[in-house]
Amino acid sequence: MPSLILVRHGQSQWNLENRFTGWWDVDLTEKGVTEAKAAGELLAGTGLLPTRAFTSLQTRAIKTLHLALEACGRLWIPETKDWRLNERHYGGLTGLNKAETAARHGEEQVKVWRRSFDVPPPVLEAGSEYDLSADPRYAGLDVPATESLKLTIERVLPYWEAAIMPELANGETVIVSAHGNSLRALVKHLSGISDEDITGLEIPTGEPIVYDFDDKMLAGERHYLKDR
Amino acid sequence: MPSLILVRHGQSQWNLENRFTGWWDVDLTEKGVTEAKAAGELLAGTGLLPTRAFTSLQTRAIKTLHLALEACGRLWIPETKDWRLNERHYGGLTGLNKAETAARHGEEQVKVWRRSFDVPPPVLEAGSEYDLSADPRYAGLDVPATESLKLTIERVLPYWEAAIMPELANGETVIVSAHGNSLRALVKHLSGISDEDITGLEIPTGEPIVYDFDDKMLAGERHYLKDR
Repeated sequence: MPSLILVRHGQSQWNLENRFTGWWDVDLTEKGVTEAKAAGELLAGTGLLPTRAFTSLQTRAIKTLHLALEACGRLWIPETKDWRLNERHYGGLTGLNKAETAARHGEEQVKVWRRSFDVPPPVLEAGSEYDLSADPRYAGLDVPATESLKLTIERVLPYWEAAIMPELANGETVIVSAHGNSLRALVKHLSGISDEDITGLEIPTGEPIVYDFDDKMLAGERHYLKDR
Repeated sequence: MPSLILVRHGQSQWNLENRFTGWWDVDLTEKGVTEAKAAGELLAGTGLLPTRAFTSLQTRAIKTLHLALEACGRLWIPETKDWRLNERHYGGLTGLNKAETAARHGEEQVKVWRRSFDVPPPVLEAGSEYDLSADPRYAGLDVPATESLKLTIERVLPYWEAAIMPELANGETVIVSAHGNSLRALVKHLSGISDEDITGLEIPTGEPIVYDFDDKMLAGERHYLKDR
C-alpha cells in the first residue's frame, strides 16, 4: 500500500531567533542538520524507504530532504521542487521577531495573525529588503505579498492533487519535505481538520509524519513514524 | 546563448585508493567535498549560474551537484537523475586496485582495458559482492555486467539528445554532474574527438568545463571555467 511521509524542515536560523520567515530563504542551523539526518535514520531503521520526493524552492526544505535521503540511502530517487510547497508568505511580518512584532502591532493583533485561518498579515512593501519578486527562482510567478493559511492551502492542494497524489496512486512511497504551513495544508486535508482547529496544530521539525493509503486511496490515521 | 557546464564528481574514496569503481556507489572524500564546493564557488564568482541540472544515480555525482549548487545559490533549480549518466561499468575489475589488477591480469592487459575504446573488461560475475542487479535504484533495468567506453557512449548520447540537448535549445544554462567516462562521451561528441584519442583524455575532478552554443546550437570550443 502506498505511504506518504511528511517532514517539516529541521530548525532554521530564524526558527532559532523566533523571527517570521515565510518565503525568506534561511539556512538550517547545526541542530536542523542533525534533525534532518535523524529523520533519514528513522526511515532507514523502520524500513520505510521513499521512492519519490517532493520539496519546496526553499533551501531549508531542500537540504532537509537531501540530508534525510542520504541518511537512508535514497539520494538517487527522483525529486521535484515546486513553489507551491513553500512556507506561507508572512508579508510585512517577514524578518520581525516576536518582540518587534508585538511592539509594532500589539500582542493581540499578532495573535490574530498567528491564529486566524483567513486573515493575512499586512502586505510586504514592494522594494522591502525581503521582497523576492525579482528572485530568479520565482521568475514568471506573481510572488504573493502576504498569505493567510487559507491562501496557502489554496495553492498547496491543487499541487497535491495534480502532482503528488498521482505518484501515491501509482504505488510510490512519497516523501514531502516542506514547511509548517504547507504541511498543515496537507494534514488538514488528509485528516479532515476544521478551519478553527488547524491553526493550532503544530508540526514538529524533523519528525516524519506518515499516512498509509488503502486500495481506494483513502488516507488512514496520521501517525509519527517514531511511534510506529 | 545557452551554456553547458560539465563537472566530474570530486575525489571519491576509491579514487583515493586507486580502485576501479564504475557503478559501485562510493562516497566523496573530504577533499572531494571541498572540490565540489569550490566548483560551485567558481560558478558564483564567474556569474555562470545553472538553471537546469542533470546527474547520475550515483551518490558521488549527486552530492557533487548538490554541494556545487548550494555554493552558487542554485539549490532550487530542477534536477534530473538518470542511470545513463553513470560511470562506465568496469565489470570484473570493480573493487580491484591497480596492483591487484596487474597481479591478476598482467600489466599489459590492464593497459588494454584502460586505453582501448571498445574492449570491455571481463564481466562481473553474478552474485559478486559488487553485483548491483538487485539494487532498487536499478529496478526494471538490465544492469550491464561490463562496459567498454564505446558501450558507455552508446547509452550516454541518446540521453544527451533526448533529455539534455532540448533544455539547452530552450536557452537553459545546463550543469551535468557526472563521471570520467560519461563525460568523455559528451566531450568526444561535442569536440569531435577520435576513438583513438578519447581514451587518453583526462577529465579532472571538480573542474567545471564549459561549452557555449551558438544560435544554430553548435558547440564552441571547450574550455575550463577557471581559464575564462
